[in-house]
Amino acid sequence: MDKRQLGFDRINLGHGSGGIMTRELLDEIIFKTFDNPYLGQKHDGSIVEIEGKMAISTDSFVVSPIFFKGGNIGELAVNGTVNDVAMCGAIPKFLSLAFIVEEGLKADEFVEIVNSVKAATDRCGVKVITGDTKVVERGKGDKIFINTTGFGEVHPKAKISAERIEIGDKIIVSGNIAQHGMAIMSQREGLEFQSSIESDTTNLNFLIENLLNNFGHKIKLFRDPTRGGLASTLSEIASDTDSGIVIHENKLPLEKQVAAACEILGLDPLYVANEGVFVAIVKEDIASQVVELLSKDVKGSNAICVGEITDNHKGKVVMQSAIGGKRIVTPLIGEHLPRIC
Amino acid sequence: MDKRQLGFDRINLGHGSGGIMTRELLDEIIFKTFDNPYLGQKHDGSIVEIEGKMAISTDSFVVSPIFFKGGNIGELAVNGTVNDVAMCGAIPKFLSLAFIVEEGLKADEFVEIVNSVKAATDRCGVKVITGDTKVVERGKGDKIFINTTGFGEVHPKAKISAERIEIGDKIIVSGNIAQHGMAIMSQREGLEFQSSIESDTTNLNFLIENLLNNFGHKIKLFRDPTRGGLASTLSEIASDTDSGIVIHENKLPLEKQVAAACEILGLDPLYVANEGVFVAIVKEDIASQVVELLSKDVKGSNAICVGEITDNHKGKVVMQSAIGGKRIVTPLIGEHLPRIC
Repeated sequence: MDKRQLGFDRINLGHGSGGIMTRELLDEIIFKTFDNPYLGQKHDGSIVEIEGKMAISTDSFVVSPIFFKGGNIGELAVNGTVNDVAMCGAIPKFLSLAFIVEEGLKADEFVEIVNSVKAATDRCGVKVITGDTKVVERGKGDKIFINTTGFGEVHPKAKISAERIEIGDKIIVSGNIAQHGMAIMSQREGLEFQSSIESDTTNLNFLIENLLNNFGHKIKLFRDPTRGGLASTLSEIASDTDSGIVIHENKLPLEKQVAAACEILGLDPLYVANEGVFVAIVKEDIASQVVELLSKDVKGSNAICVGEITDNHKGKVVMQSAIGGKRIVTPLIGEHLPRIC
Repeated sequence: MDKRQLGFDRINLGHGSGGIMTRELLDEIIFKTFDNPYLGQKHDGSIVEIEGKMAISTDSFVVSPIFFKGGNIGELAVNGTVNDVAMCGAIPKFLSLAFIVEEGLKADEFVEIVNSVKAATDRCGVKVITGDTKVVERGKGDKIFINTTGFGEVHPKAKISAERIEIGDKIIVSGNIAQHGMAIMSQREGLEFQSSIESDTTNLNFLIENLLNNFGHKIKLFRDPTRGGLASTLSEIASDTDSGIVIHENKLPLEKQVAAACEILGLDPLYVANEGVFVAIVKEDIASQVVELLSKDVKGSNAICVGEITDNHKGKVVMQSAIGGKRIVTPLIGEHLPRIC
């Protein structure tokens, strides 16, 4: 979609009316960008076929600012939901796409976001099959919110379930943590670092598929530690399964620059959101092979085994510090970083 | 969910953090209300099985006010999406549920909306299987926006496609038009009518299923004329299929009170949103039977054949007035009634 072809500068309330202007917005931007037979039905819904079991996940994206280093809200909305579907042990196939636009959003920005959505879906191998656009008055929204709901086919070899976690299982983190959150926060706070931090937003579905192809049932759980960071995700797993989790501070993959930014802003990287990292809990005997396989992919090049499931500290996460101390890692309390995704 | 059990009065940013407060909100309100094995997975997604072809539809609801005569945004968000899935000729089964809450929303109101969502899903026979909750700062949203995405199994007898429309097909409207829009507008404008107008929000899925059971392929198209009203829906059908549509003014089902309210506010009921009405385009030979079957149900008691597909006026909708005049019915131009759904 070329920005210059549009007959309007800004999105206004008429674009959410359900009448001619809505139709123009759809015809000029949405249908042209996402040209596929599903959307071509131009109905209020779409018909698809899924084989076997289906994984579904929904997420609304309210990140602020909507454009940030390393991405924008459109790309994030695709990657975020595609990753959530993948974490179920599934191969993402389709996406619904719903915009809530604040009156006055620049048409250029809308087009740029829609184009990013399209590019991201192409990278993920998913299709946008149905959508919705609402417009709210100025001051009743914040530029644009996006909801995506994703669905995919459960991988035939997958047996993802927190209940299968056992003592001795290893905890693998696929990449450097805290990048997305620190990219957003640095930008909000107007901090300038020597070389700036970029969001790690990316799609993890092919990495997940590759792991399932190779290790099948030996993978017990996938999770992506977004809002609330690694600490909240691991705490939830420990609490839900009544397992003890030990992680080793010196193993946590963290870029120096990100660590420095966290220190300046007084944030613990364990609680900072990630958008291109996942946690895998796997049977002990495949842990090193999993890390090796991940390391071959640029998105998993910093993969590392950070800890294990233990027979003590039931329901809790304990971090062993580099100098031998131990501390309980609690889930995030309070607000921390609002509107990070 | 009992309102009195909550430990907080208002939703705040912490409830969207992804940490302990988010978990409390989920555990105390969402998981307790929607107690089912799908949500019990407490994962970022959910696994379901669908047989055969699947219909999917997504909608964000931004209606203002969030509580209105005849319903609230929660109920509307369920009925609206369930109806969109049904209009595809499908039997709705599952729903995702995503909230964008403005900081400061009263917890009581949130609980009331969640309870309405639950009651509406029970009436529709669908299950909420996955969800999301985001919180935005005061002034960056408007109390609450809800996205629902619905999934259903395509009815084995359904063959819904605008391309199957032929000259001679009849156009049936299932009930009185313009009620939802006028309920919202009357409330916004502070108008007081002798007896107040209620939204017609309701689920139409069982009515649709019944029609498909009885008439199968002889039904060509279902549509629910929400935003933009009956005029916009029929115009879209005419334009997309290059068919001529004639409707008869004296057949349009419209309550006196609603007609009066439209007159006072200077609105044409043909453009006012409906939430409990659908349009069916059917083969001529079953039209009277369709109306008869619908009339037996309270939700279809005012069903009537309002027009037909003709061999002239290609791509246009023409209304024949009671006194014999004709006028072209255009789709809605401009904004009309913002945030009606």
